[in-house]
Amino acid sequence: MKAVVIREGETDPRVTTVPDPEPDAGEALVRTLRVGIDGTDHEVVEGAHGGYPEGESYQILGHEAVGVVVDANGTDVEEGQLVVPTVRRPPLGQDSNTYFERGEPDMAPDDAYVERGIVGAHGYMCEFFTSPVEFLVPVPASFATYGFLVEPLSNAEKALEHAIATRSAFEWEPEAAFVLGNGPLGLLTLAMLEQERGRYATFSRTYCLGRRDRPDPTVDLIERLESTYVDSRETPVAEMASAYEPVDFVFEATGYARHPFESIDALAPNGVAALLGIPEDWTFDVDGGRLHRELVLRNKALVGSVNSNVEQFERAKRSLGAFPEWFPDALVTGVYPPDSAADAFADDRGNEAAIKTVVEFATR
Amino acid sequence: MKAVVIREGETDPRVTTVPDPEPDAGEALVRTLRVGIDGTDHEVVEGAHGGYPEGESYQILGHEAVGVVVDANGTDVEEGQLVVPTVRRPPLGQDSNTYFERGEPDMAPDDAYVERGIVGAHGYMCEFFTSPVEFLVPVPASFATYGFLVEPLSNAEKALEHAIATRSAFEWEPEAAFVLGNGPLGLLTLAMLEQERGRYATFSRTYCLGRRDRPDPTVDLIERLESTYVDSRETPVAEMASAYEPVDFVFEATGYARHPFESIDALAPNGVAALLGIPEDWTFDVDGGRLHRELVLRNKALVGSVNSNVEQFERAKRSLGAFPEWFPDALVTGVYPPDSAADAFADDRGNEAAIKTVVEFATR
Repeated sequence: MKAVVIREGETDPRVTTVPDPEPDAGEALVRTLRVGIDGTDHEVVEGAHGGYPEGESYQILGHEAVGVVVDANGTDVEEGQLVVPTVRRPPLGQDSNTYFERGEPDMAPDDAYVERGIVGAHGYMCEFFTSPVEFLVPVPASFATYGFLVEPLSNAEKALEHAIATRSAFEWEPEAAFVLGNGPLGLLTLAMLEQERGRYATFSRTYCLGRRDRPDPTVDLIERLESTYVDSRETPVAEMASAYEPVDFVFEATGYARHPFESIDALAPNGVAALLGIPEDWTFDVDGGRLHRELVLRNKALVGSVNSNVEQFERAKRSLGAFPEWFPDALVTGVYPPDSAADAFADDRGNEAAIKTVVEFATR
Repeated sequence: MKAVVIREGETDPRVTTVPDPEPDAGEALVRTLRVGIDGTDHEVVEGAHGGYPEGESYQILGHEAVGVVVDANGTDVEEGQLVVPTVRRPPLGQDSNTYFERGEPDMAPDDAYVERGIVGAHGYMCEFFTSPVEFLVPVPASFATYGFLVEPLSNAEKALEHAIATRSAFEWEPEAAFVLGNGPLGLLTLAMLEQERGRYATFSRTYCLGRRDRPDPTVDLIERLESTYVDSRETPVAEMASAYEPVDFVFEATGYARHPFESIDALAPNGVAALLGIPEDWTFDVDGGRLHRELVLRNKALVGSVNSNVEQFERAKRSLGAFPEWFPDALVTGVYPPDSAADAFADDRGNEAAIKTVVEFATR
């Protein structure tokens, strides 16, 4: 079958032919519809992240997928069912472990998982893939086009859940939320926060940080979501409180290393910053005394969050299903056939007008 | 009556005579037994913290008290009842506000409270004090000697509660806890963690950081609590994981500004650091990129915590009541009459053998 892979020693994705996968006992065979590209995929391609599946010199890319079950292989999933696969799996040679048994592979330490398409396991950017059925989240037929967004959105759902938990020991009434980043994860988060109103907490006002001149498609999208665009060149995060207002919730989705520190100043008393972005090493000065004191005297919290579990996929599914119809249309700016996957990666990284790029293997 | 005060323009506590307090409607009159001294009291004395009560040129010190109700003044508290007063009150001229109505004055922002003995209100280091009865936590008669420890311990209880909350979105099974600081708050926390076993979470192993040569009374106390003493001169916090083990819970009780940053490295995956110490400004280098990434990829959290509410006083009361009898005896190393309050402050700060110092107004 056709697959988009990164080969050892190379730094560009290429389309190649690999053996068709065969489902093991407990696994179903899925025909891939669409696979999204995100920042982690670029890191995998550039060799800065992840590791090849054991004993292989290439890795099939992609971890944001939607597909159709074509062979249930004796499992209880229905053939023809649309599914979104989760990302983490037990390490090679382990059937399971504590974290997977609890349904919390997202909380597993480094040696207790591999990640499909990211580290130690093949991804979904290929015509067919197999998976144990407990890692296939069923989605409605209407999700064929945008169901691949469930995975990135599930990461935002998890971060929100953990951030809300940090504030659960008291009566927290957040009003203002500030999403750092107008990339796909930031924009999905912004849409989720709108959708979350009333479920966890009502954010009366949301803000989204970017670094773009108008006219810009992401700024348009932010404003269409009834959020306020904050240009970081005019308003650094640390000045958010004086320029707009102190915010109850910060959601860091850029990986800019200074953001967690600057967020402490952006937060209102009792606020929390959820961190999702993944920066490189970078040493710089901070007034650590002041930041430490501010955390203490104003009961503030920082919480890191990575990956997501099936429950959070289910939440993301509900959020995505409730998004306004125009939103995913506006978010997904590039759809490429697998043969043009290299162009898809190049466009996703290099084109300012690109928001979310997807590789399409089939439409249904 | 006799009171220990700090006067405007002075930096030493002095004993003076002030008018006897008169209870307002809803307030009881309390005869003071004992009032502890802590780091915040030293800061108040040194003028680095707090503010004088409106319109006054002196402040009565002390916020860790235990006393006996001598005039119920028509309230439903019994005369002769032993009580521990909480610290925060609504600002002058406010009967209450949202935070006090919720029973969460500890979560109030700066302009929504004063603190008795600390900022904007007189403390308890005097023969009698008055308080609305809802801020008087009844304690058993056996608490006459050590009941003043309920207040500092309640701060540790709050920090623990908030830290546990940050980990409530998943199944957290902490094993190792690391208390930073062998001052009274650190040692009370260590005793509390022993006591907490089974209530929230079992810490199979605890560690306590200090900077003292043996023989030392705090090291003895740590070891008598069956905890492990960690000498920060040999094992900096950031090296805890390699020198001993990565820990699930860090409890920062020193106010050393670098600790929150170093704690990120001391934590095991999914760990949390609770911050209670209050540092001065201090700018230094951190590898912010690495620390940010570590928070994210290993689901770690930092949570600041200040003050405490009646519920947390109640918990502290239960913890204190369950401490081994030798513990408060070993903790309280200096008992001074009010006329020697200046010596009490000097000894508390200057004497290496001093752990917790208390001013005693009466014994029952």
